[in-house]
Amino acid sequence: MEGLILMENLLGEIFGTAVLTCMGCGVVANVILKGNKGEGSGWIVITAGWGFACMLGVFTAVSLGAPQADLNPAVTLAKTMNGVYQPGHAVVTMVAETFGAFLGAVVAWAAYLPHWEATEDQATKLGVFSTGPAIRSYGANFLCEAIGTFMLMFLIWVIFNANNGQLPAGFGPYLVGMLIWALGLSLGGPTGYAINPARDLGPRIAHAILPIPGKGSSDWAYSWVPILGPLAGGAVAYFVAKAINLI
Amino acid sequence: MEGLILMENLLGEIFGTAVLTCMGCGVVANVILKGNKGEGSGWIVITAGWGFACMLGVFTAVSLGAPQADLNPAVTLAKTMNGVYQPGHAVVTMVAETFGAFLGAVVAWAAYLPHWEATEDQATKLGVFSTGPAIRSYGANFLCEAIGTFMLMFLIWVIFNANNGQLPAGFGPYLVGMLIWALGLSLGGPTGYAINPARDLGPRIAHAILPIPGKGSSDWAYSWVPILGPLAGGAVAYFVAKAINLI
Amino acid sequence: MEGLILMENLLGEIFGTAVLTCMGCGVVANVILKGNKGEGSGWIVITAGWGFACMLGVFTAVSLGAPQADLNPAVTLAKTMNGVYQPGHAVVTMVAETFGAFLGAVVAWAAYLPHWEATEDQATKLGVFSTGPAIRSYGANFLCEAIGTFMLMFLIWVIFNANNGQLPAGFGPYLVGMLIWALGLSLGGPTGYAINPARDLGPRIAHAILPIPGKGSSDWAYSWVPILGPLAGGAVAYFVAKAINLI
Amino acid sequence: MEGLILMENLLGEIFGTAVLTCMGCGVVANVILKGNKGEGSGWIVITAGWGFACMLGVFTAVSLGAPQADLNPAVTLAKTMNGVYQPGHAVVTMVAETFGAFLGAVVAWAAYLPHWEATEDQATKLGVFSTGPAIRSYGANFLCEAIGTFMLMFLIWVIFNANNGQLPAGFGPYLVGMLIWALGLSLGGPTGYAINPARDLGPRIAHAILPIPGKGSSDWAYSWVPILGPLAGGAVAYFVAKAINLI
Repeated sequence: MEGLILMENLLGEIFGTAVLTCMGCGVVANVILKGNKGEGSGWIVITAGWGFACMLGVFTAVSLGAPQADLNPAVTLAKTMNGVYQPGHAVVTMVAETFGAFLGAVVAWAAYLPHWEATEDQATKLGVFSTGPAIRSYGANFLCEAIGTFMLMFLIWVIFNANNGQLPAGFGPYLVGMLIWALGLSLGGPTGYAINPARDLGPRIAHAILPIPGKGSSDWAYSWVPILGPLAGGAVAYFVAKAINLI
Repeated sequence: MEGLILMENLLGEIFGTAVLTCMGCGVVANVILKGNKGEGSGWIVITAGWGFACMLGVFTAVSLGAPQADLNPAVTLAKTMNGVYQPGHAVVTMVAETFGAFLGAVVAWAAYLPHWEATEDQATKLGVFSTGPAIRSYGANFLCEAIGTFMLMFLIWVIFNANNGQLPAGFGPYLVGMLIWALGLSLGGPTGYAINPARDLGPRIAHAILPIPGKGSSDWAYSWVPILGPLAGGAVAYFVAKAINLI
Repeated sequence: MEGLILMENLLGEIFGTAVLTCMGCGVVANVILKGNKGEGSGWIVITAGWGFACMLGVFTAVSLGAPQADLNPAVTLAKTMNGVYQPGHAVVTMVAETFGAFLGAVVAWAAYLPHWEATEDQATKLGVFSTGPAIRSYGANFLCEAIGTFMLMFLIWVIFNANNGQLPAGFGPYLVGMLIWALGLSLGGPTGYAINPARDLGPRIAHAILPIPGKGSSDWAYSWVPILGPLAGGAVAYFVAKAINLI
Repeated sequence: MEGLILMENLLGEIFGTAVLTCMGCGVVANVILKGNKGEGSGWIVITAGWGFACMLGVFTAVSLGAPQADLNPAVTLAKTMNGVYQPGHAVVTMVAETFGAFLGAVVAWAAYLPHWEATEDQATKLGVFSTGPAIRSYGANFLCEAIGTFMLMFLIWVIFNANNGQLPAGFGPYLVGMLIWALGLSLGGPTGYAINPARDLGPRIAHAILPIPGKGSSDWAYSWVPILGPLAGGAVAYFVAKAINLI
């Protein structure tokens, strides 16, 4: 029984995170790869796309039996600190999320097949898959990712807090989507708001493996920032939320 | 009685799909035809317009007695595989959808009457009616349309899955609109996201028939892609959704 | 008692339409008058602004005791044909709507006070108040306004049709706002979508009266189009909606 | 007991307003500081960002035990006139709001750390923190801020008026966010819509204190406008709303 629930949960997390990065990497591809109909359509398109991607990922996870619908190891970590998961379950969930994020990036790559060759710049091609800093400064980039994920986790607890009442069916995932849209608009400027280790690592692995014409480095030197920054931000959110009795 | 229900259903599908393409072709006309107040306003306008167009089409179909509100033969096919329709009923519904899409495109053409002559480029004029590839590559274009429609069908089943609860009245059509907005943002770059054979074929016929000053080819060579791609994507969505017990 | 209800209704229509044009003329001023922080921000801003303006106008009218919340003589006409109002009541309501639209435009003018002198072009200044055609062609412009208002009225009846269920509190006005956003995106290109005689005439009178530095003609030659086009479109919507049993 | 409720209320107002300005100053930083991924993405991004920032701030305040969720001394003043607060409580709440707004601006400053040095223009750097007029004209700027805040307060009373029904859980904060988005679109052009003394003063103090490379004046000469204008607008809203029996 326990095992069955875990399996359902993993299926939901895998598919949910795959939807997240298929749609999320997709919108970046549309805006920055050469020749696309959405080429150059800017930050409002990218952030709206990621917001809806997250909303749809949450709906997907819940529909497949994963009501927590984390889609994000930083969220899973903070919830584990709050007693929602056993540590072993948490680790397996994080792996599932990263695997799902890898799968989704592969689908996005396939959808944009003719546009990889049309795009010359190597950093642009990597930018479809994983995040990179506007100004490289590891400490500041780490801080920015930590702040963004702190806000993400803190505000998820806020939105679903009992004082705000029982949200109507479907409105919770919608508000999570709006939250992600908001975080991209407000805190996404310096690092491209990974705020999710799986969303960054899964697609980065896809970039390393996939046969992308003329691709360059997968920039592993930066890859720890969008992993450790979000995990740190989620952990701090737990301590703050606990201290002020939000959770 | 059966016949009456079928008639109501067809009326709803015709009017719903007409609303879809009147508003959808309309927003493209606004952005790409010369002289319009929305000229050059870009991808965020086009995708938001199609998203709302779909929301309004769904409301229309439901209000006229077509609760399924498919507006899309690829959706009708996948639901038929799932046992919702008799095959004969499905075929009639698909014809009704295509006829509605034709009607809506005619209304959009009329609303933009003085702007056809003001616009010289022939491909632009066709682009108001039906989709075309950013980079012509039939295999890749087919794949892109199939992926987009897979996501459409899969996510419709996700959103209305019982695990997400009974959505409040009106919120379902709204979420379908947001889903279409999302698909345009994330997967619309390479082919302009027909993801619906009726939405493409109906207006393409309108383009072929209507007296549009200085119009060019209706590009029938490409027309099978936005028909077969979506049908294939919808069918695959059925098999995947069935395999993982989503439906 | 009857008189009291009529007075409340008129108060609601006046304030609701004033909110509509204060916010609606305001967003146009922001985008087209020189020096504003939103200058040149384009069609997505204008249409989103008018959509929210309408949502807020509807909330206002309802809160002040005007549950019909027409804000629009074309809507009032179509509802009168459907038996909602006595003819005399309808005429008074239309006058109230036009008066409210005048008031709202005056407030928008005051909010943008230093920007009238900073803007040289006379047509731009008029464009803040009332609509004008992208390509002047009275017949086609009339048709475009009629189509837009047909869609407006038809889709209002669609959204509030019993088959779509009883919308949750506040969701109706929100959907009306999204409908106006959609109409601007999809059908606003050729004439700037007055789709409302009061919204155009009230502010046009304000333009004629107000001391606007360097203002030009109020273009009365065009003014009948955004009055008669919407009225015709609303009337046709009544006949079509009746014919297909939508109402 | 009274004291406990006050403490909870202050905690909610502080955190809520901190979320408001962290996200709000953040989105401005993203759009106007050099090198950001959202650089130059314009008014739709700024206004959407502030709208969601306000929605999230309201959710935060409510979740922490401050159901009024003012986040704004002009709102607190108008509600005090309406008998919601004791005068002493109102003053403490206003201080808490300003302190929260200061905190949020500090967090936004930290998130954008490497971008202060990359940006040369001093007015741009101040613009992240506090508002400034497009055309400096104290009387007109005061009037614009008063009109904007009048609309804010009036429309909050409108949206939550009993005639609009009991909004579903979470839909109230969402609509407040859309209202702020609307106000930015429609009335934000001339002064950048402070419409909130705390939102302007708190971050202006942060600008004065923080070690920002190459910063210029905090423009204290203008600072009274976004304090007194909003307070006046909120007070007038009270009298108008009372006169027409809205409250």
